[in-house]
Amino acid sequence: MKTIAVDMDGVIADVYSQFIKMHAAESGKVFSREEISGRPESEVFPNERKHVNSPGFFRNAPMIEDSQAVVERLNDHYKIFIVSGATEFPNSLMEKQLWLNEHFPFIGWQQMVFCGSKEIIKADIMIDDHFKNLDHFTGETFLFTQPHNKMADPGRHRRVESWQEIERLLLQ
Amino acid sequence: MKTIAVDMDGVIADVYSQFIKMHAAESGKVFSREEISGRPESEVFPNERKHVNSPGFFRNAPMIEDSQAVVERLNDHYKIFIVSGATEFPNSLMEKQLWLNEHFPFIGWQQMVFCGSKEIIKADIMIDDHFKNLDHFTGETFLFTQPHNKMADPGRHRRVESWQEIERLLLQ
Repeated sequence: MKTIAVDMDGVIADVYSQFIKMHAAESGKVFSREEISGRPESEVFPNERKHVNSPGFFRNAPMIEDSQAVVERLNDHYKIFIVSGATEFPNSLMEKQLWLNEHFPFIGWQQMVFCGSKEIIKADIMIDDHFKNLDHFTGETFLFTQPHNKMADPGRHRRVESWQEIERLLLQ
Repeated sequence: MKTIAVDMDGVIADVYSQFIKMHAAESGKVFSREEISGRPESEVFPNERKHVNSPGFFRNAPMIEDSQAVVERLNDHYKIFIVSGATEFPNSLMEKQLWLNEHFPFIGWQQMVFCGSKEIIKADIMIDDHFKNLDHFTGETFLFTQPHNKMADPGRHRRVESWQEIERLLLQ
């Protein structure tokens, strides 16, 4: 059974919605995803780190469309690990585990990995929205489209636009 | 630079001292390490899971002798990751990170991994006290002696009795 390392923020957890909402609450400016396409998160949201450290930022993030249903179906055919950068923001550890327990109850504690660098991850497939995670991974790599990477050349990684596309690639 | 995955409980964090102390507080019986050698933790400490879930169990664990000094020296010559099974006990996540920040301040958040199964870990060397973690690891494996594994045949793993021994093997 092949192993898939699935990223959390920007892949199953919609952190952009949280950034947009918090930025709007502070500045009054509601960004559309189109107008922030191709711009790094830190440039669009100058208070990014403050937002990420706000209680509830991760706990209340919406799910990315179709992620729950497709990961549940993948979970029957692959060994799934949810691998999330979390140790940079210590408060996120508990929030992320609670979020997974609520929205992805079919993911057991054995399948959760909260880390800093993903260099130490061994799997057959990695699904992530950040080049820094995919670039040193030696297996098959899927770049999940998010505004910050939308304009970038995916290079050796396969760009995927949605969980429906991932389902077509991995389950059909 | 080679990568080392260093386990936490029973390798750098002395959880046996915590079990012995909590068992004594409940039962009045203070175990010596000799009399519990070769017996599984769950048999010696029937309330093991209750202890592990007690606030402070991980946060207040003493360090294993010489672990801090040797890991700090290894950190100059190897890429060190502290890889700890933590997601089974959600309260342990924050306690473990605070413990590392206090006792191993030279270990950055990039070097911390809190997981369930260690199947997903890729490194050159793994130091762990449990066969279940070492057995599916494909690199070099060091079995750190703890009472529960003391009588077991280490098989293909190299048994190490102390951090001084690890230092001799990896730094000289």
